[in-house]
Amino acid sequence: MGLIVQKFGGSSVKDTERIFNVARIVTETYSKGNNVVVVVSAQGDTTDDLIAKAAEINPNPSKREMDVLLSTGEQISISLLAMAIEKMGFPVISLTGWQAGFKTNSNYSNARIRRIESERLQVELDKKNIVIVAGFQGINRYDDITTLGRGGSDTSAVALAASLHADLCQIYTDVDGVYTADPRIVKDAVKLDEISFDEMLELATLGAQVLHNRSVEMAKKYNVKLEVLSSLEDKPGTQVKEVIKMEKMLIKGVACDDDVARVAIIGLPDQPGIAFKIFSSLAKRKINVDIILQSIGRDNTKDISFTVPMSQKDAALICLEEEKELFKAQRVEMDDTVAKVSIVGAGMQSNPGVAAKMFEALFEADINIRMISTSEIKISVLIDKSQSRRALVAVHNAFDF
Amino acid sequence: MGLIVQKFGGSSVKDTERIFNVARIVTETYSKGNNVVVVVSAQGDTTDDLIAKAAEINPNPSKREMDVLLSTGEQISISLLAMAIEKMGFPVISLTGWQAGFKTNSNYSNARIRRIESERLQVELDKKNIVIVAGFQGINRYDDITTLGRGGSDTSAVALAASLHADLCQIYTDVDGVYTADPRIVKDAVKLDEISFDEMLELATLGAQVLHNRSVEMAKKYNVKLEVLSSLEDKPGTQVKEVIKMEKMLIKGVACDDDVARVAIIGLPDQPGIAFKIFSSLAKRKINVDIILQSIGRDNTKDISFTVPMSQKDAALICLEEEKELFKAQRVEMDDTVAKVSIVGAGMQSNPGVAAKMFEALFEADINIRMISTSEIKISVLIDKSQSRRALVAVHNAFDF
Repeated sequence: MGLIVQKFGGSSVKDTERIFNVARIVTETYSKGNNVVVVVSAQGDTTDDLIAKAAEINPNPSKREMDVLLSTGEQISISLLAMAIEKMGFPVISLTGWQAGFKTNSNYSNARIRRIESERLQVELDKKNIVIVAGFQGINRYDDITTLGRGGSDTSAVALAASLHADLCQIYTDVDGVYTADPRIVKDAVKLDEISFDEMLELATLGAQVLHNRSVEMAKKYNVKLEVLSSLEDKPGTQVKEVIKMEKMLIKGVACDDDVARVAIIGLPDQPGIAFKIFSSLAKRKINVDIILQSIGRDNTKDISFTVPMSQKDAALICLEEEKELFKAQRVEMDDTVAKVSIVGAGMQSNPGVAAKMFEALFEADINIRMISTSEIKISVLIDKSQSRRALVAVHNAFDF
Repeated sequence: MGLIVQKFGGSSVKDTERIFNVARIVTETYSKGNNVVVVVSAQGDTTDDLIAKAAEINPNPSKREMDVLLSTGEQISISLLAMAIEKMGFPVISLTGWQAGFKTNSNYSNARIRRIESERLQVELDKKNIVIVAGFQGINRYDDITTLGRGGSDTSAVALAASLHADLCQIYTDVDGVYTADPRIVKDAVKLDEISFDEMLELATLGAQVLHNRSVEMAKKYNVKLEVLSSLEDKPGTQVKEVIKMEKMLIKGVACDDDVARVAIIGLPDQPGIAFKIFSSLAKRKINVDIILQSIGRDNTKDISFTVPMSQKDAALICLEEEKELFKAQRVEMDDTVAKVSIVGAGMQSNPGVAAKMFEALFEADINIRMISTSEIKISVLIDKSQSRRALVAVHNAFDF
């Protein structure tokens, strides 16, 4: 008995059959005596259909109007799911983002949640209603509709769980948990029973694509107990929480990200402020920089290289070419034939053997390492994109999962 | 220069081409120096598609959830129209029903507007924005979404015009005005330059299908100047207003309604309270009764007959059969082979020749009259349904339009 927030993505509510599947999960949870709040995304392709409609009219609409349009997708889902639950004879009510009290900033299409005014929601829970909430959306201080951008519905669910002090936030997906590697590529990948927030964050960033990192960051900040599980199979998933028992295995997973390009700025003067200038120029243009490496200088010059998502490589190049004079760089290079393979696990830094084991596995698979970057809980290498799947399998096999 | 409310129905915004057509009308009105508020319905078949989606899940969903679902239709329209107007380079903003301040009662799916809190709308008009408002929808005192039922968007437009003290409320349709008869049936039908609220009300009730009578009633109550005109042709429509010049022609139009059945209750005791019992029973079951006739009694009994829409004839029969004992009626009869033909015009009662002329026209066309009912501004007859079109033409030809 407690308060459980359950989140279902677009594929989980894509048609009538799937909607009733979700209704079954929700009502079973409710029947066990729990209060249940459900967060849903727009059905299957609804969002893409709406985007196509808009594009036909205006290829560059204002983000405000786009949010008015897109937020209808979740509004359709919440009402349909509520109707399915009504059909099954349970008390239920749907609430849009604004009805559920989601207050955001005004950054249309990528808004941040400022607070949730959950009085209405609490009233409905007190009435023993199952409450269905539209994910991905809120309103700003002017009462204008906003959407939360990528990973928005996960973030809505975690924010609700934090605000309502829920006992558990369950994220239902089409996989049954978090794996030590992508099970579609690595046959021996093992499902994890639990993982820490920090490890999950590294895995999310590294392309494990199970949970968006915004939602994991928020879960960590408010200590919301998360569970990732399948909406199609009735079995336990992966718990994501703050503290993991020490006797658990060191390496939590191996991830691979092909969507990456490496940019290098060669021959920078070895003087203070250069890195600041470069990365603030990139930040101003909203270019997401991932791994940053700075080489030791030679002839009073140094090189800085970093990775960006493939979609931003051209923007990054244009930015750097334009500002090259300002940075006093000799030249800019770009390499989009790379992939990033990473291992993630707490306490890695105090176990130097881990890095060696990873590098050995790559060497034995005859894969050349082009760049290395390490943090407290992860080791990432850049390799040739064409070798990424093979690298993932080799590294995964090297560790005992 | 003034404030103009323009309303466009679902067929006027059904695709990109039509949306740009509406955008052109709106921006031309704005460019002449007017403040413009636009009310739109859901696109073409959107509402039907949403109803079908719901029916697949729950054939009998709660009206509250149905309203959450259906209100997305207008929300899609307002954002798309706003994007089209943005594309044309004009300042524009869309507002949902709740953002535009539509407060209704809680009668889901058929709510009544209680008031419009138009502060936000006024702010946007002061900023010289074209304001696009979702018709058909509002919120109740609990902040739950409601829809206004049939004719809802017309009513939204008139209510806005009343609330904002607009100079004119233009209802754009796919016909270019109000005609003396349905121009698809009567070739000689003439477009009226103007018509009074009362005459329009009778015509709307009688099946002229141009304006819903709820919106005309509201326009009359708040003296909102209405214009009915075509969104596809650029020419003046029909003005609907309070006072019509006296020298204008007497008969404003001839209307025909096939969607009608006649119910008769035979052999009622001739005592007080019988009519009250019958019509309160029908009202309790929300059966809309139109023409009511009570015959002069014979043998201490009387007969009461009335008309109902075809869709309610069975419900009416069931109601009367169940309560027959209570009314002490001998029997109940139903006839669904009738149609109603009516002429409408102010001052008819003081011109007895008008009724005679109508009856003569029907006699000459060899059409039998089954029932007659008159009011100050209309004369209705029930005739055989199979003769309704011929009757319409005959009566129209008898008067000088």
